[in-house]
Amino acid sequence: MTKDTAIKIATLQAKLNKKLGPEYISQRPGPGGGPKLTYAEGWKIINLANEVFGFNGWSSSIVNMTVDYMDCNEETKRYNVGVSCIVRVTLSCGVYHEDVGYGAAENVKSKAQAIDKSKKEAVTDAVKRALRNFGSLLGNCIYDKSYAQEVTKIKVPPAKFDKSELYRRPEFDDTKPTI
Amino acid sequence: MTKDTAIKIATLQAKLNKKLGPEYISQRPGPGGGPKLTYAEGWKIINLANEVFGFNGWSSSIVNMTVDYMDCNEETKRYNVGVSCIVRVTLSCGVYHEDVGYGAAENVKSKAQAIDKSKKEAVTDAVKRALRNFGSLLGNCIYDKSYAQEVTKIKVPPAKFDKSELYRRPEFDDTKPTI
Amino acid sequence: MTKDTAIKIATLQAKLNKKLGPEYISQRPGPGGGPKLTYAEGWKIINLANEVFGFNGWSSSIVNMTVDYMDCNEETKRYNVGVSCIVRVTLSCGVYHEDVGYGAAENVKSKAQAIDKSKKEAVTDAVKRALRNFGSLLGNCIYDKSYAQEVTKIKVPPAKFDKSELYRRPEFDDTKPTI
Amino acid sequence: MTKDTAIKIATLQAKLNKKLGPEYISQRPGPGGGPKLTYAEGWKIINLANEVFGFNGWSSSIVNMTVDYMDCNEETKRYNVGVSCIVRVTLSCGVYHEDVGYGAAENVKSKAQAIDKSKKEAVTDAVKRALRNFGSLLGNCIYDKSYAQEVTKIKVPPAKFDKSELYRRPEFDDTKPTI
Amino acid sequence: MTKDTAIKIATLQAKLNKKLGPEYISQRPGPGGGPKLTYAEGWKIINLANEVFGFNGWSSSIVNMTVDYMDCNEETKRYNVGVSCIVRVTLSCGVYHEDVGYGAAENVKSKAQAIDKSKKEAVTDAVKRALRNFGSLLGNCIYDKSYAQEVTKIKVPPAKFDKSELYRRPEFDDTKPTI
Amino acid sequence: MTKDTAIKIATLQAKLNKKLGPEYISQRPGPGGGPKLTYAEGWKIINLANEVFGFNGWSSSIVNMTVDYMDCNEETKRYNVGVSCIVRVTLSCGVYHEDVGYGAAENVKSKAQAIDKSKKEAVTDAVKRALRNFGSLLGNCIYDKSYAQEVTKIKVPPAKFDKSELYRRPEFDDTKPTI
Amino acid sequence: MTKDTAIKIATLQAKLNKKLGPEYISQRPGPGGGPKLTYAEGWKIINLANEVFGFNGWSSSIVNMTVDYMDCNEETKRYNVGVSCIVRVTLSCGVYHEDVGYGAAENVKSKAQAIDKSKKEAVTDAVKRALRNFGSLLGNCIYDKSYAQEVTKIKVPPAKFDKSELYRRPEFDDTKPTI
Amino acid sequence: MTKDTAIKIATLQAKLNKKLGPEYISQRPGPGGGPKLTYAEGWKIINLANEVFGFNGWSSSIVNMTVDYMDCNEETKRYNVGVSCIVRVTLSCGVYHEDVGYGAAENVKSKAQAIDKSKKEAVTDAVKRALRNFGSLLGNCIYDKSYAQEVTKIKVPPAKFDKSELYRRPEFDDTKPTI
Amino acid sequence: MTKDTAIKIATLQAKLNKKLGPEYISQRPGPGGGPKLTYAEGWKIINLANEVFGFNGWSSSIVNMTVDYMDCNEETKRYNVGVSCIVRVTLSCGVYHEDVGYGAAENVKSKAQAIDKSKKEAVTDAVKRALRNFGSLLGNCIYDKSYAQEVTKIKVPPAKFDKSELYRRPEFDDTKPTI
Amino acid sequence: MTKDTAIKIATLQAKLNKKLGPEYISQRPGPGGGPKLTYAEGWKIINLANEVFGFNGWSSSIVNMTVDYMDCNEETKRYNVGVSCIVRVTLSCGVYHEDVGYGAAENVKSKAQAIDKSKKEAVTDAVKRALRNFGSLLGNCIYDKSYAQEVTKIKVPPAKFDKSELYRRPEFDDTKPTI
Amino acid sequence: MTKDTAIKIATLQAKLNKKLGPEYISQRPGPGGGPKLTYAEGWKIINLANEVFGFNGWSSSIVNMTVDYMDCNEETKRYNVGVSCIVRVTLSCGVYHEDVGYGAAENVKSKAQAIDKSKKEAVTDAVKRALRNFGSLLGNCIYDKSYAQEVTKIKVPPAKFDKSELYRRPEFDDTKPTI
Repeated sequence: MTKDTAIKIATLQAKLNKKLGPEYISQRPGPGGGPKLTYAEGWKIINLANEVFGFNGWSSSIVNMTVDYMDCNEETKRYNVGVSCIVRVTLSCGVYHEDVGYGAAENVKSKAQAIDKSKKEAVTDAVKRALRNFGSLLGNCIYDKSYAQEVTKIKVPPAKFDKSELYRRPEFDDTKPTI
Repeated sequence: MTKDTAIKIATLQAKLNKKLGPEYISQRPGPGGGPKLTYAEGWKIINLANEVFGFNGWSSSIVNMTVDYMDCNEETKRYNVGVSCIVRVTLSCGVYHEDVGYGAAENVKSKAQAIDKSKKEAVTDAVKRALRNFGSLLGNCIYDKSYAQEVTKIKVPPAKFDKSELYRRPEFDDTKPTI
Repeated sequence: MTKDTAIKIATLQAKLNKKLGPEYISQRPGPGGGPKLTYAEGWKIINLANEVFGFNGWSSSIVNMTVDYMDCNEETKRYNVGVSCIVRVTLSCGVYHEDVGYGAAENVKSKAQAIDKSKKEAVTDAVKRALRNFGSLLGNCIYDKSYAQEVTKIKVPPAKFDKSELYRRPEFDDTKPTI
Repeated sequence: MTKDTAIKIATLQAKLNKKLGPEYISQRPGPGGGPKLTYAEGWKIINLANEVFGFNGWSSSIVNMTVDYMDCNEETKRYNVGVSCIVRVTLSCGVYHEDVGYGAAENVKSKAQAIDKSKKEAVTDAVKRALRNFGSLLGNCIYDKSYAQEVTKIKVPPAKFDKSELYRRPEFDDTKPTI
Repeated sequence: MTKDTAIKIATLQAKLNKKLGPEYISQRPGPGGGPKLTYAEGWKIINLANEVFGFNGWSSSIVNMTVDYMDCNEETKRYNVGVSCIVRVTLSCGVYHEDVGYGAAENVKSKAQAIDKSKKEAVTDAVKRALRNFGSLLGNCIYDKSYAQEVTKIKVPPAKFDKSELYRRPEFDDTKPTI
Repeated sequence: MTKDTAIKIATLQAKLNKKLGPEYISQRPGPGGGPKLTYAEGWKIINLANEVFGFNGWSSSIVNMTVDYMDCNEETKRYNVGVSCIVRVTLSCGVYHEDVGYGAAENVKSKAQAIDKSKKEAVTDAVKRALRNFGSLLGNCIYDKSYAQEVTKIKVPPAKFDKSELYRRPEFDDTKPTI
Repeated sequence: MTKDTAIKIATLQAKLNKKLGPEYISQRPGPGGGPKLTYAEGWKIINLANEVFGFNGWSSSIVNMTVDYMDCNEETKRYNVGVSCIVRVTLSCGVYHEDVGYGAAENVKSKAQAIDKSKKEAVTDAVKRALRNFGSLLGNCIYDKSYAQEVTKIKVPPAKFDKSELYRRPEFDDTKPTI
Repeated sequence: MTKDTAIKIATLQAKLNKKLGPEYISQRPGPGGGPKLTYAEGWKIINLANEVFGFNGWSSSIVNMTVDYMDCNEETKRYNVGVSCIVRVTLSCGVYHEDVGYGAAENVKSKAQAIDKSKKEAVTDAVKRALRNFGSLLGNCIYDKSYAQEVTKIKVPPAKFDKSELYRRPEFDDTKPTI
Repeated sequence: MTKDTAIKIATLQAKLNKKLGPEYISQRPGPGGGPKLTYAEGWKIINLANEVFGFNGWSSSIVNMTVDYMDCNEETKRYNVGVSCIVRVTLSCGVYHEDVGYGAAENVKSKAQAIDKSKKEAVTDAVKRALRNFGSLLGNCIYDKSYAQEVTKIKVPPAKFDKSELYRRPEFDDTKPTI
Repeated sequence: MTKDTAIKIATLQAKLNKKLGPEYISQRPGPGGGPKLTYAEGWKIINLANEVFGFNGWSSSIVNMTVDYMDCNEETKRYNVGVSCIVRVTLSCGVYHEDVGYGAAENVKSKAQAIDKSKKEAVTDAVKRALRNFGSLLGNCIYDKSYAQEVTKIKVPPAKFDKSELYRRPEFDDTKPTI
Repeated sequence: MTKDTAIKIATLQAKLNKKLGPEYISQRPGPGGGPKLTYAEGWKIINLANEVFGFNGWSSSIVNMTVDYMDCNEETKRYNVGVSCIVRVTLSCGVYHEDVGYGAAENVKSKAQAIDKSKKEAVTDAVKRALRNFGSLLGNCIYDKSYAQEVTKIKVPPAKFDKSELYRRPEFDDTKPTI
């Protein structure tokens, strides 16, 4: 292992040891009126993975997807669907973690929407669960209740919309002079 | 890794960190009269993938296609079909992501059209879902509600039709002198 | 990568970024009297693939073929058949795309013809769907409604029949002197 | 790639871009008294493949053969059989195409003949369908209706029988002196 | 490729382009009193294959053998059997063709003979069908109706029996002096 | 084995021989009012694994997941679910341990939540069980009742929340000067 | 290929082109009192194969053995059995042929003998059928009816028993002096 | 084999030939009031394996896990569960042993707890059984009844709790000066 | 091939071309009072194989063993069993032959003995059948009826028992002086 | 093979040729009051294997475990269980033996204990059976009835308990000075 | 092949050509009061194999074990069990033989004992059957009835018990001075 590689790994490790700042954290009501649940949205964790490992640093595959149940309420004709998914996330160096995610739809009128939502939720949830095994930063910190209690107290101003971050087709690109 | 490669990757990463400009974004009514849904059309994301990775930079394969249901309404004799599809997108460097897509047809007179539409929709949807894992630009940004709210406010003039972009058979090619 | 290869790839990419000229585009009535559908005939796209990649530049295989239904109307004794097909198109450099195609026959007297037509249609359709992933030129442009609306307005004179393009058995080959 | 190889490929490509001369084209009545169907006989296309690629330049394999139906009319005791076949044609350079062919027998007295005919027809048809993907010359041109309309107007004198083309057992070989 | 190899291949190709002389051709009554069927006997084509490719130049394998039906007439207690067989013929250079053959027995008293005949016929027929893909000489010419019509007009004197072609056990070998 | 490697391994072994400090230990009521159960929370053990082996030093995969039962109480309509999971943990040097984990939900109103909770619990439990095989520190010490009795007597002050450990988006990062 | 090898192959080919002398040919009554059937006994063809290729020059394997039927006549309690067998014969140079053989027993009292005979007959028959593909000498000549008609007219004196061909245990070996 | 390796192996062998000291041994009442059973707790044997082979010296995998029975007493509604597990333990040098372990729960109120306990017990038991094959020290000595009788007579003072063996988070680590 | 090897092979071939001396031949009554059957006992052929090829020159494996029937006579309670076995015999140079053998037991009181005898007979019979393919000497000569008729006329004196051929435990070995 | 290796093997062979001394032999009552059965306990044979081959000289794996029966007496509610197990023992040099072992429990109250005992017994028994194939010493001598009769007559004083053979935790290790 | 190897093989062959001395031979009553059966006990043949090939010269594996029947007499409640086993014996030089063995128990009270005995007998019998293929000495001589008749007439004094052949634990080893 060259020194450069060693430094690169140590830097990466240090980053992964960090905990999620409040701007990565969301809350939703717990089941049955219980205490709020703290979680990170899937797209944020995927963005983080791309930031930490690079777009060419991690891969994900669906090892298994199981529809646990697909029930139709005989009265309301609405659907309840539950789907489990196992995802494997692999880094370029070859290490990997597999974990399970869950997606469900309750009381949904359209069967298509119920399955669609459940399956996609399950995959994204599983990607998050698999990624958290790589360190605090990728979601393992959220399972630490004392951290969760504190970080949710920090106020985060709403995200600002920054046009310069947009990818525009050439004809709309103000930053480039029109010829 | 040569310096050239490193620069190439960094440039690619920077591009992938961008968010979709408004010309890539569409909206449709949400289910049950709910709020509008924001999304990107499949062909635009495929075009972007070809722009970002090059036509020789990414591959896609259908890992699984499942017809979840194919129902015929006994009265109207119209069909409801729902199809899930898992697609794997692989880059030349070997990294990959798998994700699920959904396609459905509701209340369609022809069984053929119902299945045709559902299966094709499911594949394209899965390609989109798999691609978004590679970064904001390829669709992950859309899951950020605050971005979605702002970007859809930007007006985009209708696309102009540009004849010079057309590929013509030699006999119709004005740019080349007729001999 | 040698400079020659780089130029070759860039030229190919530029070609693939083009859109189909009107001579590649057809229209047919939409289902249920709806708006016209815009599409490209299968043989034209296959010709284009051979033109762009060369006959030795692309391969295609049938990953799966499924007869979704084969119904016989009890009164008319005519057949309705629907077939889905997944095709993988692979380029010499190794990249590939898989996509689904559909073929159907409605109200056909002969069972053989109904299946024959459905299966062949499904394969050709799938080849087209898989090829469009490689770029605008190979069909992805057609999904852009504003383009489709404009390109179909351009008039194309009927194709001329050119005897010199024919491959003749030696005895019929006028270009070669008879000995 | 050596220059020789490049020239060889370009020559081959030019040949494949040609269209079939009228001596390769046949017509038969369309189903249900419809317009004539234009097609090329299987043996001609196989001969062409051997001419273009050489006997050692292409291979064919039966990927799948399915008897779609085998019905016996209860009154006439005659058989209707329909068979689909998927064939893969592979060139020496490794590229390949798979496509489907169909064979059917209607109202045939002997079950054996009905199946025999259907299966053989299906294989030959599939070989033709797979070969046409390699270019206009190997059959893709026939799908171009304007070409088909014109080429069938060209008159072709009947083929002459040429004894010198015959392969004779030594005892019948006039060209060699009898010892 | 050495020049020697090139010449060898060209010579082989020229041979394969030839058509079968009349001594290789047979005719039998068509089904249902229809026109005569023209064909080549299996053993002649196998002999030709050995002559053209050499005994060490081609291989054959049975890819699939299917008994399509095995019926016993309830009155006559005689058997009708139909068998399909797919054979792959492979040349030493690696190219191959697969094709289907058929064998049938009608109205045969012994079940054993009915199956025996059908299976063997099917294999030999499939070997012939697979071999014809390699060129005119190995049977593809027979599908050309104008050729078939002419070649069957040529008279062939009956084959002469030539004792010198016999392989004899040493004790019967006249050509060698008895010690 | 270089001396460096030997030292690295010895250091790692020494660390693994340690026992968990009280801050890693939790207690919960035993089943049926029995004595308290001593355990370590899953996220702490995963954090430890990352600390000891490094994020690039260990992998985990789900070898098997079995839903042992999924019962619905006919009166309360609440669900009981039990799930077993076998996980394999592999270190970079190739050694591995497989062990089983369990997850269950009792008397849960939502079927989705019952399965979701059971499956995730089972995976995390199995990861813990597999990791404890690598040494005292990763959980094997907890099975030592005399240790468990003592370590739980040590008081641990509540964890302090340390903002500097948070990973913040650039716009919220106080440690970096705003430009 | 060395010159020696070339000569060896040419000699072998010449041998294989020969036809079977009358001492290799047998005849038996045709089925149903029809014309005599001409055939070669299995052991003779096996002996020839060993003579032509050498004991170390060819291999045989049973690709498939199928009991087509095993019927017991309810009255006579005698058995009818029919067995098909596919055998592959492979030469040392790697070429191979597969073919089918048949064995049957009719009206046999003992079930064991009926199966025993059918299976062994089927294997030997298949070995013969596979071997005949290698050339006239190994049985392909028999399918030539004009040859068969002539060769069976040649009288062959009964084989002489030659003690010197016997392999004797040392104690019975007259050619060696007893010590 | 170097001398160093030889010495290492001999030392290891000598260690494995030892018998377990009394501090490794436990006793529990035998079934049905029979004589006490002597055994070693699982965690002690796992610790020993890590001590003898090193954490990087042995691996374990679950070859098979079978739920032999899962019975519910109809009156008490309590569960009886029995599980067998086969584990393979592999050393770095490649040698391995597989053995079976058993886990059971009797009269347990919660189905989850019954299965959980049975499965985990079975795995740990199998690990112990597999390890004992490597020598006396890893448990084979316990099967020697005369040894078991004597070793259980030796008194062992209760284990002392040693804080210095604890792995503490930095903030609780007294051995390191607080900065 | 060295000259030594060539001589070795030629010698072996010459041996294999020999026919079995009368001391290798047995006869038993034919079925149903028919003519005597001529055969060689299994152990003699195995001894010959060891003599010809050497103990390290041939291998045998059971490719398939099928119990064709196992019937119990309802009255006599005696068993009839029939077993087929396919054996492959492989020589060191890689050539091999597969053939079928049969074993049967009729009217046997003990089911065990009936199966035991049938299976062993079938294996030995198959070994013989496979070996005969290697040449006259290993049994192919027996199928030659004229040879069989003559060889069985030669009288063979009963084998003499030769103590010097016995392998004795040292204590019984007279040839070695007792120390 | 070096001379050292040859000596090592010869020494090993000589050891394996020995017979078990009386201290390795046990006896138990035969079934149904029959004569005593002579056997060696499993742990002794495993110890011997480790002594002869070294802990790193042999491996064992469970090829198959079958529960032959698991019966519950309807009156006594006690269990009878019988289990067969096939074990393969492999030496470092690659040679191996597979053999079968048996374990049974009769009239046992607890189902768990019945299965537990049967399975473990079966494995250990199979290990013994497989090991005995390597020579007299590893158990093959016991099948020699005359040896068994004599060896069991030799008196063996009870084994002495030797504290110095115990492996002690450092705190209990008298042989090492306490610091 | 070196000269040493050649000599080694020739010596081995000569040994294998020998016949079993009377001390290896046993006799038991034939079934149904028939003539005595001559056989060799399994342990003797295994000992011989180890003597001839060396412990490191042969391997054995169980290719298949089939319980042919397991019957319980309804009156006597005693068991009849029959088991077949196919074993492969492989020598170090790679040659192998597979053969079948049989084991049976008749009228046995305990189901466990019946299966145990049958399975073990079957394995040992199969090992013997496989070994006999390697030559006269390993059992093939027994099938020679004239040998069997004579060898069983030779009287063999009972084996003497030789203490010096015993392997003793050090404490019982008289040959070594007690220190």
